[in-house]
This record gives sequence, C-alpha cells and structure tokens, in this order.
Amino acid sequence: MTTKVKQSPRERLLEAAATLPYRDGVGIGVEALCKAAGVSKRSMYQLFESKDELLAASLKERSAAFVARALPPADDGRSPRERILYVFERVESLAGAPEFRGCWYLAVQIELKGQSHPASRVAHQIKAQLTAFFHAEAERGGASAPGLLARQLILVFDGASASAGIGADHLTGLISPTVTTLLDAADMH
Amino acid sequence: MTTKVKQSPRERLLEAAATLPYRDGVGIGVEALCKAAGVSKRSMYQLFESKDELLAASLKERSAAFVARALPPADDGRSPRERILYVFERVESLAGAPEFRGCWYLAVQIELKGQSHPASRVAHQIKAQLTAFFHAEAERGGASAPGLLARQLILVFDGASASAGIGADHLTGLISPTVTTLLDAADMH
Repeated sequence: MTTKVKQSPRERLLEAAATLPYRDGVGIGVEALCKAAGVSKRSMYQLFESKDELLAASLKERSAAFVARALPPADDGRSPRERILYVFERVESLAGAPEFRGCWYLAVQIELKGQSHPASRVAHQIKAQLTAFFHAEAERGGASAPGLLARQLILVFDGASASAGIGADHLTGLISPTVTTLLDAADMH
Repeated sequence: MTTKVKQSPRERLLEAAATLPYRDGVGIGVEALCKAAGVSKRSMYQLFESKDELLAASLKERSAAFVARALPPADDGRSPRERILYVFERVESLAGAPEFRGCWYLAVQIELKGQSHPASRVAHQIKAQLTAFFHAEAERGGASAPGLLARQLILVFDGASASAGIGADHLTGLISPTVTTLLDAADMH
C-alpha cells in the first residue's frame, strides 16, 4: 500500500495500476486496486471511466520512465551499435531482480488478448517507439537491412523479457551473444 | 460449444479449457468453462479438484498434439539444421491464422505469474521438451555451442510467437533469416 502523503488519489491509483496488475495479472479487481491506493471506488470512478481506462492511463503515464530506464540518453557519445547493446544490457540487468515479471507492455497485450483494448493500444504504441529507436540506430549504424534488424531486435527483446519473466532463463551469456550475432550479420557498426 | 455426442463430460471440459482461456485469458470463470462444455459445476468438481487442475490437465493432455504439430517426425531424413528450421516454418504458418494468440504454453506462464501454479508447471515442462529438441539437434548438427544455440532458438520461438500473437509482427521474412543467422553463427550444418 502506498503511504506517501503527498500523492493525490489519482497518483495513488496510477501507481497501484502500474504495480499490482504487473505482479498479479490484469484480471485484478477494481476493489483490490482501490484498496491498495487507499481510494474509494466512488472516487476512482470520478477520476477514471473504468478500470480499463485507469490501466491505459497508468501505462501511458509510466512510458517516459520506461523509455528513460530502457534507452540510452540522447547523444551520449555511444555508437549506434553500442546504443542498441545498451538496451539489452539493461534488460539483462533488470531481469535479475526478483520482482521482474518480463516486459509489462508485452504482458499487457498478451493478457488482454484484444488489440482494441485501450491499454493494449497504449502498450502497442510504446513498443512501437522502441522498434523505432532500433530502426533509427540501425540506419545510423549502416545496417544492411535496418527494417529487418529492428524487427529482429524487438523479437529478441520480447523473447528475452518473456523468458526471464517466467523464470525460464536468466539471460546471462545469452542476450549479448545473440544480439551481437544479429548486429554482425547486418554489418552494423 | 462442443456438440460432439461421443465426447465424455471430461473430454468436453478439457476441450473447453484448451480453447476458451487461450482466446480470452486464464481469468475466465468456472461457469463459462462449464457452460461451454455443457457440464454442470457439480460434475466438473467431481472430475477435477479445481479450475487450476482442469487447466493443468488440459495442457498436459494436449501436449502430444502440440509436439506432433510443432516438431518434425522422428528420423524423417531431414538434417538437424532442416529439422530446426521446420519448427520455425510451422510457427510462421500457424501465426497466419486469425485465431492465433501466440504460444499457449508461454502465455499461460505469463498470465498465471507464479511458477508454482499447476498449469505453469505443466507448461514449463512442455517448453523444456522443445528446448531439449533444439539442444539434441544442435549437438547432432555439430553446433559450436549447442547449449547456447538451444537457448537462442527458444528465445526466438517465444519472441516470435508472442509478437505474432499480439499482432505486432506477421513473422514473414523475419523468423527464417533470424534463425538462419543464428544457425550459421553456430556453424550448424
């Protein structure tokens, strides 16, 4: 339960919606979310149209933090190749945390099934930003087929985070050689 | 709803548990499962201890069909490299179906979160069989690091099926060059 007194009910709901469904699944009830946020259901429905809208708002609100955590800073002096590898080093590092359950933006889409769900749409857009980052770096690094490389990298990103999220693999000694092989095959410098 | 008269209540429940949660998520209620199977809740609880056990039994019962659908026949004359590529051709082909929602054994583990859930344990074992297949073929094909290659292949398998399952990528022109690159890098023949 969030006890930071400075947070508004809206902020507490967004935080609950960012943490509880990640840990327990999107099927978590409105009551559990409101209880964790210390907000009445009545107040929740005054702030958000539905649980679906709360979930979508929470994903959107956290997307900047996700990008800051996953991507290297702009113009940090790293080469395009190093900037791509940076993302996967971050995944490997985050995957080591006991509370890691994989990429939330992938899990949300898998769990919600329909692509028309408001939260699925937000999650899809955020992952599209990551693909766009890979594509831009692949182009800057002179990759032979930047579109293909970007698709390969997001595929590895999703496979790796899913695999680590369910505890099937720890990623150590896996993700770096895999990405390196794909970058080399694309003549990426 | 299943209407095949020859199926027993048990078989109808196993079929409902294999199809509805795949389409709608593991959060689907016991009532919906029983309704689809045309079986009373009382009968269901006489046959299965809980919804969790029904789900686990359904996954286990379908695993032979999954293996038959995903893997090449034993001793079919294909080389180890071709046998691995066969699996990914199957994924690409299955991913084109409108009802495709990705690998069910991965989704179940992502949706259930806990690795101790009976259905998660069954799903984990079935995926371990697939990894063992990749490992055996990698060894037979003289891969330089068969253990690493097997981990890479299951990572691509999971990333690809997840990506196609949420409609983020159609896999065409993606999965084959990715696997080929990894097989080449492992000197796999």
